[in-house]
Amino acid sequence: MASQPVRPADVEARCARIDILAVDVDGVMTDGRIIVDDLGVESKNFHVRDGLGFALWHKAGKTSAILSGRSAPVVERRAAELRIGRVVQGIADKGEALRALLAESGATADRVCYIGDDLIDLPAMRAVGLACCPADAVEEARAAAHVTTVATGGSGVIREVVERILKAQGLWHDACGPYLAPAT
Amino acid sequence: MASQPVRPADVEARCARIDILAVDVDGVMTDGRIIVDDLGVESKNFHVRDGLGFALWHKAGKTSAILSGRSAPVVERRAAELRIGRVVQGIADKGEALRALLAESGATADRVCYIGDDLIDLPAMRAVGLACCPADAVEEARAAAHVTTVATGGSGVIREVVERILKAQGLWHDACGPYLAPAT
Amino acid sequence: MASQPVRPADVEARCARIDILAVDVDGVMTDGRIIVDDLGVESKNFHVRDGLGFALWHKAGKTSAILSGRSAPVVERRAAELRIGRVVQGIADKGEALRALLAESGATADRVCYIGDDLIDLPAMRAVGLACCPADAVEEARAAAHVTTVATGGSGVIREVVERILKAQGLWHDACGPYLAPAT
Amino acid sequence: MASQPVRPADVEARCARIDILAVDVDGVMTDGRIIVDDLGVESKNFHVRDGLGFALWHKAGKTSAILSGRSAPVVERRAAELRIGRVVQGIADKGEALRALLAESGATADRVCYIGDDLIDLPAMRAVGLACCPADAVEEARAAAHVTTVATGGSGVIREVVERILKAQGLWHDACGPYLAPAT
Repeated sequence: MASQPVRPADVEARCARIDILAVDVDGVMTDGRIIVDDLGVESKNFHVRDGLGFALWHKAGKTSAILSGRSAPVVERRAAELRIGRVVQGIADKGEALRALLAESGATADRVCYIGDDLIDLPAMRAVGLACCPADAVEEARAAAHVTTVATGGSGVIREVVERILKAQGLWHDACGPYLAPAT
Repeated sequence: MASQPVRPADVEARCARIDILAVDVDGVMTDGRIIVDDLGVESKNFHVRDGLGFALWHKAGKTSAILSGRSAPVVERRAAELRIGRVVQGIADKGEALRALLAESGATADRVCYIGDDLIDLPAMRAVGLACCPADAVEEARAAAHVTTVATGGSGVIREVVERILKAQGLWHDACGPYLAPAT
Repeated sequence: MASQPVRPADVEARCARIDILAVDVDGVMTDGRIIVDDLGVESKNFHVRDGLGFALWHKAGKTSAILSGRSAPVVERRAAELRIGRVVQGIADKGEALRALLAESGATADRVCYIGDDLIDLPAMRAVGLACCPADAVEEARAAAHVTTVATGGSGVIREVVERILKAQGLWHDACGPYLAPAT
Repeated sequence: MASQPVRPADVEARCARIDILAVDVDGVMTDGRIIVDDLGVESKNFHVRDGLGFALWHKAGKTSAILSGRSAPVVERRAAELRIGRVVQGIADKGEALRALLAESGATADRVCYIGDDLIDLPAMRAVGLACCPADAVEEARAAAHVTTVATGGSGVIREVVERILKAQGLWHDACGPYLAPAT
């Protein structure tokens, strides 16, 4: 999809159509670290600003989903806190998982944004209207993405994408209105 | 408040009046990472130098408070260790929380310094005499702050603000006197 | 082995012969951090992309081993998840451990790649056909390595080495084929 | 002690006399992060290369001690693994703690190296023959140190100091001899 350089105007048009945000976990919502302890308990480093990103996204009436190749209970926990509507883990084929999400939601591909960082994410990135990746994604993911965020994985990637889409749709100011200074 | 460039002399004057230090947690006392494990236990990365910062602040006879948008038991634990007087978590409206803190303490707004890093902190930043944020705060917070610290969130932001205020008040040397070399 | 500058063509030839990947843990699969808690439970920061690296390696029909100087249950757990065939911990003499691995597998040294980052790894690095180290390895390790990765420890060193070897062997495209875009 | 610029030759002479290595924990053996969880369990990020640093130090017949201002069970655990001879925690006055260590060991101050990173460490740094600090120590510590390491806290400070001292004493090669390549 991004085999030719992406024109900025094209990205704005893609952003304008997005209603569903589907994201990878490791390397996108986190810095890619799989923290494991002696007892086999796994931890992940999420970022507080992605939390506000999802909150603003949902406040704007949009839906969200997690599509993860690995599987860890901690993901269900974080997703519940963030009220992410759909969580699918242990995915071998992300292209298929993305198509299942489309079928289930009845949405067309151009309404979906997918954020991924690695080879396994490429089929999903190729299947959606807006493909994004973190600044530190693998080269192949950066080549396939319409948008590479300034943020690296786990330091606010979701927030940055949400802000970009909601601004393109003219919904940003309303979503975060109470926080902004009154006009003078 | 910071709609025009802040003049250094103005910052010094603002610092000179501060008695209460109110701080956000995630992204200010920490690097913004929400560390969650499979069992649902959350951890945060605090910094040892912020611990000494709070200690020097209290030694100088000042008071402190935490105003957090999220809610986690770990915050109560760290606050108790640092002897932070007031801890309010799960705040939806930080402007209101800040005004409640003022009412409760009987202090005027110009006596309060608030440190925040994100959109949710803006109402509190606009309501105090001295608004500070970490180097890696969101753009809107940096625009609203009188002081942006050199330190990023979780690497000594509190300590840097405490040092700046106590020096402006001529209290720094006394507060950390025993550690400093005797004059020669 | 690397007492003279390594010529690129030489590295390619070395890569072309590798069937066994033996790796150090701390500082290679991790960032070197030994995370210990009050209860004595140890954690390590692994990286999700090294996980995919091992998966691609095994998919290409290759074998892998961990040779660690320290000893921690978490290593067994991560190795099991990654299906690493052989795990030896608490090694005092890595040269000896490497030779035992050769004897056991019946492979010659030129078929083995070892990745290490510190002094203790040098005897193993000198005993194999391809010696690699992370960008932040100690000076002596970088001097002994045929390949110093762009990645620092814990941020994708294994993945980078796997990609380099499989590409040199013409196996990369097959191993990650399902992820790549169909030719157009 | 370091009120005038330290001459390199002077540092070598100071290194040549050291037998006891006394170190701070947070910000020196770690990156300064105090990791606390909901249950009140604290973790610290130690570094694997400092582990080898202490091992080489002890192999050279030297002794070591930890002097920490805070107090956490995890420190006792890491100290036991590293065979650090003396652990004192919860220290309010590090100058006094250092003098107690001298009295107990019968050593003179010029035989002791102390590594610290913050204001609380200054009295100990002023009381020893060789004062060191990490690259990211506070300004006052860097001004008081004879040696500021290239490494930041928690990424190999101890190892770097040990290497410098043992090299100044001609003991480095023997201590890590088995790892080094045989002369050719």
